[in-house]
Amino acid sequence: MAVNLVAPNPVNLYPVAGVKIGVAEAGIRKANRKDLSVVLLDAGASVAGVFTQNRYCAAPVQICRDHLQRGLGIRAMLINTGNANAGTGDDGMARARATCIALARKLDIAPEQILPFSTGVIMEPLPADRIEAGIPAALRDAQADNWARAAEGIMTTDTLPKAFSAQVLIDDKMVTITGISKGAGMIRPNMATMLGFMATDASVPQALMQQLATDLANGSFNRVTVDGDTSTNDSFVVIATNKVAHAPISSWTSANGQALKEAMMGVAQKLAQAIVRDGEGATKFITVKVSGGNSTDECCKVAYAVAHSPLVKTAFFASDPNLGRILAAVGYAGIADLDQKKISLHLDDVHVVTHGGRNPSYKEEDGARVMQQSEITIHIGLGRGNVTDTVWTCDFSYDYVKINADYRS
Amino acid sequence: MAVNLVAPNPVNLYPVAGVKIGVAEAGIRKANRKDLSVVLLDAGASVAGVFTQNRYCAAPVQICRDHLQRGLGIRAMLINTGNANAGTGDDGMARARATCIALARKLDIAPEQILPFSTGVIMEPLPADRIEAGIPAALRDAQADNWARAAEGIMTTDTLPKAFSAQVLIDDKMVTITGISKGAGMIRPNMATMLGFMATDASVPQALMQQLATDLANGSFNRVTVDGDTSTNDSFVVIATNKVAHAPISSWTSANGQALKEAMMGVAQKLAQAIVRDGEGATKFITVKVSGGNSTDECCKVAYAVAHSPLVKTAFFASDPNLGRILAAVGYAGIADLDQKKISLHLDDVHVVTHGGRNPSYKEEDGARVMQQSEITIHIGLGRGNVTDTVWTCDFSYDYVKINADYRS
Repeated sequence: MAVNLVAPNPVNLYPVAGVKIGVAEAGIRKANRKDLSVVLLDAGASVAGVFTQNRYCAAPVQICRDHLQRGLGIRAMLINTGNANAGTGDDGMARARATCIALARKLDIAPEQILPFSTGVIMEPLPADRIEAGIPAALRDAQADNWARAAEGIMTTDTLPKAFSAQVLIDDKMVTITGISKGAGMIRPNMATMLGFMATDASVPQALMQQLATDLANGSFNRVTVDGDTSTNDSFVVIATNKVAHAPISSWTSANGQALKEAMMGVAQKLAQAIVRDGEGATKFITVKVSGGNSTDECCKVAYAVAHSPLVKTAFFASDPNLGRILAAVGYAGIADLDQKKISLHLDDVHVVTHGGRNPSYKEEDGARVMQQSEITIHIGLGRGNVTDTVWTCDFSYDYVKINADYRS
Repeated sequence: MAVNLVAPNPVNLYPVAGVKIGVAEAGIRKANRKDLSVVLLDAGASVAGVFTQNRYCAAPVQICRDHLQRGLGIRAMLINTGNANAGTGDDGMARARATCIALARKLDIAPEQILPFSTGVIMEPLPADRIEAGIPAALRDAQADNWARAAEGIMTTDTLPKAFSAQVLIDDKMVTITGISKGAGMIRPNMATMLGFMATDASVPQALMQQLATDLANGSFNRVTVDGDTSTNDSFVVIATNKVAHAPISSWTSANGQALKEAMMGVAQKLAQAIVRDGEGATKFITVKVSGGNSTDECCKVAYAVAHSPLVKTAFFASDPNLGRILAAVGYAGIADLDQKKISLHLDDVHVVTHGGRNPSYKEEDGARVMQQSEITIHIGLGRGNVTDTVWTCDFSYDYVKINADYRS
């Protein structure tokens, strides 16, 4: 039961010139399921990605990093669900490489021009033979107008596909941005989410792409959490196909650079927030805003401590304004010299805590009213400095336990 | 439904010379509930404590630290449940002090010779008047043979009281150790658990007490976690009444010092493990042992990452050997230069992972067999150094959500 999230309407997803997508049922883990996607890029696209900082990163993540560094020009992405190919050692690397080689042969390109992605169960051997057998059907399916099918094709425990588009004028030329993401659990991205892909037909030199990918991730996928578990397979890839003939972006501080990045950030945030809205068992979408910090790091420490606290998350599930649990989480967030007398807490517009203690005018029925909503902002003031940051999360329900106790059965 | 934990049999709890305990029903939050305890110490006891590192520490914690530093000699402890007196600002400090003054008058001692403890809901005003009104009944109840009642009197969401005794010979004289603890949720002690008290009639100079309290906490309460939420009120107090006339302990490296500390550590570990066994919703008791680390810090980082992962904890609840989730947690534990090819994983005697990948001889039915047990050891080898450390935790069930969604109602 996702929180205020609906399946994307294909008519609202704009094709991106230079990108074609095909989806197939390869029977990787279960039959009759779209579990294999290929994304084909025309030659000349600029591509960059950010990947999990989990030291146990999956084989495809290691290969993506390697292939991006080689700089041969990325021409395709190969994405499977049902198996993460993580914790699989050298054998996992060999199997991932075999799938790249198989697709490369069909496309007559080098294997190093392909980025592989896997998501699913950890520590089981990747059925590379099924992926290879499924590639021809995925290629036959390839077309520009296929983003909605791809969003469905990369789902695992997601209840809804996630895809958004935007358009923005650059030099009076219409530029299109479309992205998809997947993820619902094992979500505390520390570079990007399980899988996120965005493409634009704007003209962006390759040299500017890594900064773009990093900045977009930091403002979106790196600010959401469901359960605090950083995945082994987090990957976020940004593509610029350079098809629209505006003057190529010269820097991210230029007017055109800012406009493009802002539009792309809007899509990235919707994609990231969609993961929280579809968080396993989620019934509420919670924005944790921390202001008055001395640094981004300390704002995020506090925001994540609150967003990860099982006690806070279950209280929100219960609509119980047991808000002292938020203060406890603020207190253990790891700011050694935090002064509790400077802490303030608002729940939406309700002023709950002032100078570290209960606001004398706070009434529990006001807190209870906000707790009933499906979208709630927790705003914590630290009273230390001028930095603000925000993390998005969801509550913690019976269904989270149910989904994760049953996931493999 | 606690895991392999039963209520203490009072006949197995030895009185400690120099300690009397009284319990009363003061109606602090609910009627007909033992919610107020006094612990009376003869003059001359050595006392030390360790307290939460949560920056939002409760008023009684702040007062305990102050009173211990004054060195007037601690003569009593006053413990209430039903209200944590945390997040209550200056008013909370005044109310806690008022309860100390009330008890001090009855005992004809200084208020600074009293240590106050509170546990329960955060951010609600402490009903000091009810505590003061309940003190006479608690004092009338005071007797040496009352440890079991006290263990009951400090319970909140605990399903069972927690108390253990041990005896050890020091210089051929029998020394007694008895302790009690409480806690089931908001458990990730970072000095001590919610509340733990231990007393011995051994002779220990005051100058050695702080080291003892710290060492005992580090080997017991600082190695358990239920949900990763460090409480605002964690307190662990160790008392030596100096009643047994052996030569006073001269150091913790002496033979007598080692023998006493080992016996006390045994009780402290049982008290700490009892909290995990009674962890909210717990169905399994899990030992997370990490060996091959370069330092205690990195062993603990990995052990806590695994012990806190909702995905690992729900898999154990489901008895599902989805053990890749353990590898994912090892990978995001925060060791920047971790080499996944050196990781090994055992589940009890079952060798699951070798050189970072699935052990070729591992069979899922072997993992499934161990997962069915109520007591399981996860042993992770890091292949980096010679340090080993251990953390105790429990699984994560529907009932954890239920208990914490319903706690205040």
